[in-house]
Amino acid sequence: MAAASQARRLRPQLEIVALERGHWTSYSACGIPYLVAGDVDEIDQLVARSPQELRSRFRIDVRLQQEAVGIDVDRRVVEVRDHGHDRTYPLAFDQLMIGTGARPLRPDLPGIGSDHVRGVQTLEDAAALLEAAKRSRCERVVVVGGGYIGLEMAEAFHRWGAQVTLVEGSDAVMRTLDPDMSTHIVDAMRDLGIEVRLAEPVKAFEAGSVVTGSGRLPADLVVLGLGVTPNAELAGDAGVTLGARGAIEVDARQRTSVDGVWAAGDCADTWHRVTRRRVHIALGTVANKTARVAGVNIGGGYARFPGVVGTAITKICGTEVARSGLTEHEAQMAGFEYATATIETTTTAGYFPSAEKMRIKMLAERGTGRVLGAQIVGGAGSAKRIDTVATALTAEMDVAEVLELDLAYAPPFSSVWDPVQAVARKLAPVL
Amino acid sequence: MAAASQARRLRPQLEIVALERGHWTSYSACGIPYLVAGDVDEIDQLVARSPQELRSRFRIDVRLQQEAVGIDVDRRVVEVRDHGHDRTYPLAFDQLMIGTGARPLRPDLPGIGSDHVRGVQTLEDAAALLEAAKRSRCERVVVVGGGYIGLEMAEAFHRWGAQVTLVEGSDAVMRTLDPDMSTHIVDAMRDLGIEVRLAEPVKAFEAGSVVTGSGRLPADLVVLGLGVTPNAELAGDAGVTLGARGAIEVDARQRTSVDGVWAAGDCADTWHRVTRRRVHIALGTVANKTARVAGVNIGGGYARFPGVVGTAITKICGTEVARSGLTEHEAQMAGFEYATATIETTTTAGYFPSAEKMRIKMLAERGTGRVLGAQIVGGAGSAKRIDTVATALTAEMDVAEVLELDLAYAPPFSSVWDPVQAVARKLAPVL
Repeated sequence: MAAASQARRLRPQLEIVALERGHWTSYSACGIPYLVAGDVDEIDQLVARSPQELRSRFRIDVRLQQEAVGIDVDRRVVEVRDHGHDRTYPLAFDQLMIGTGARPLRPDLPGIGSDHVRGVQTLEDAAALLEAAKRSRCERVVVVGGGYIGLEMAEAFHRWGAQVTLVEGSDAVMRTLDPDMSTHIVDAMRDLGIEVRLAEPVKAFEAGSVVTGSGRLPADLVVLGLGVTPNAELAGDAGVTLGARGAIEVDARQRTSVDGVWAAGDCADTWHRVTRRRVHIALGTVANKTARVAGVNIGGGYARFPGVVGTAITKICGTEVARSGLTEHEAQMAGFEYATATIETTTTAGYFPSAEKMRIKMLAERGTGRVLGAQIVGGAGSAKRIDTVATALTAEMDVAEVLELDLAYAPPFSSVWDPVQAVARKLAPVL
Repeated sequence: MAAASQARRLRPQLEIVALERGHWTSYSACGIPYLVAGDVDEIDQLVARSPQELRSRFRIDVRLQQEAVGIDVDRRVVEVRDHGHDRTYPLAFDQLMIGTGARPLRPDLPGIGSDHVRGVQTLEDAAALLEAAKRSRCERVVVVGGGYIGLEMAEAFHRWGAQVTLVEGSDAVMRTLDPDMSTHIVDAMRDLGIEVRLAEPVKAFEAGSVVTGSGRLPADLVVLGLGVTPNAELAGDAGVTLGARGAIEVDARQRTSVDGVWAAGDCADTWHRVTRRRVHIALGTVANKTARVAGVNIGGGYARFPGVVGTAITKICGTEVARSGLTEHEAQMAGFEYATATIETTTTAGYFPSAEKMRIKMLAERGTGRVLGAQIVGGAGSAKRIDTVATALTAEMDVAEVLELDLAYAPPFSSVWDPVQAVARKLAPVL
């Protein structure tokens, strides 16, 4: 919808048809955990633009419950399944924008198809989760997988009132952080009363329980938090080239390998500015930006997406978490030699009454001193500082340049050396 | 002290003597309003390093109540007034670091020398203010001048329990912001019950009152908030060249015009990276960074200070305020042609329960699209975003580059387009 509305702005005469398998458009999937937790009252609050608004204000022919089930790129036709009327019809196009998103990974285990095993991606998923939670007693929830959504859903159901267990097959949650940082998230979850079971792979799902290597965990509801995989099969079957992790390969203008066929959002791959490799990053920020670029280009304008630096943020059980650039593992995979420094400091001046603890870790390349990444775990006001790192990564700054940035200081906001600079100051001599 | 301890790290054998007119070392002057407001309980909490610690840990010969009253740069001698023992003695040096700071501006008006008219710069000032506040009834406080310290002290005394009036000669407070932004600060102060009188120049100070163009304002205590002027007379009298606004002129290594004489902090001028002019900016961040650079160089290392981009932040009556780069007035003075955009948005996703209003204004150069500055006024979580702008200014990014930054998004922290990007998005077509 971001691409469609952008194209509409540039080309008022364009005929735009949008196919949506479900019932909602332009919504914040990232808001689903807060809906479950009760922070947000109604599903409709997560909808930025309703189908009605898109139709009347943007003159987009939004067709709900209509699913693209085939693409013929030579004949320029999409085969559409109209679930509402139980029919299939062909839809011709000049330009095709694919924004099919991603879906939760469902491991190939016994019982994975059970009704009480739920993914979290669409508002349909959210509605089903809320319904399942109300219908059953839902006293015990097991979250399988310690990714962002897994952790957010664990907290959401805990706040909703359930007894929550998080089961993670590896020995750390949130594998997008280094283990020495993510361990503090586990502490925060356990402090709140969520049971976190690490290095415990799930073997099967049964009625009323999850079977792991250690035994049976009672579960009225199972939530999958194992990450997502791109919905790229439709494009792949049509002969569109797939790239990183099976996502649709696109160039900086969001063009696919097929002329006049574009892709953006969670179904497409993208460019990592630090590793200079193609990656698949399923985040709302990337989806919105790449969709805008696709829409500008489809509308006859010119836009290029310069890529990501790997920024992400969340808040788990009162602990803020953020990362940008590369973790140690990612730096190793990309072939960088690097040094790291970690500091524990406070979110405000140390003497300020609202000071909370925060930890920040920074990586920089040996030789050049170029900043490669940072991770933050801490109290209120700590994590959004990652934006400074993201901007410095984009500008390819080195540690010395970060040290001398003119960052904002007043006692309610920071120490006189902002934590981002304080860790750079510790890292500089190590390099 | 920052320069001295840095030099000590690099040269363990160096003999370092530090002269301090007052009783305290290495303290946070920025913390004084929070001491008066009661956020901070004890003066000593604002002290980062005591004279004892500097003596024992850093082996710096700290001499309290000893004031440099003359410098002979040819004979390499400082004349020292020992207030404690009422004597004067000569002190020889090889290298001299001048860190005499700044002092509150005291307008040349009748009664300015009265005991109840107070500046706020040193911990001595803080102690005197607290003492005066306790001694008198201190029911009515008049703050003269709407700069950062003036506004912070107005709030501090309001929270302390006094009836506070702020008197400002011009038609806006905080002249470091554009009036269309600073007006929201005035609203926040008035909402809290602080009387703000604009365009009302002070004529005289009398016992128990402040005389303005409109009449007499009762005042048990008068606090000066008119800004500061560098303590550069000592250096100027010694023949050291003075620069911007009478501050000591230094180069990027913090060298003055006299060989072996260095200056840093509020007494020195500095380089503005956006205007490419020398400026005087009396802020703790600049003081700490320039002192570190001076200390590295005095210690035999090599460091250059690349300059500032004009970042500042504060919190007034629950409203966060920040700026970086140039205001409209500053851009005009520097000869830039520019366009501006302002948006009102929320600190978190709009549907999130803790969403607070925030307003952000951005300036960019016509033709190049280069970002020239931004200002933020808003609720909790809004102002520290200025660091993104400060980093982008340092990297000389244009509006399109800011638009595509990989900034962090999750519903508790931001909209999917961070406010910094949302305003860039509005500004781009205006350019």
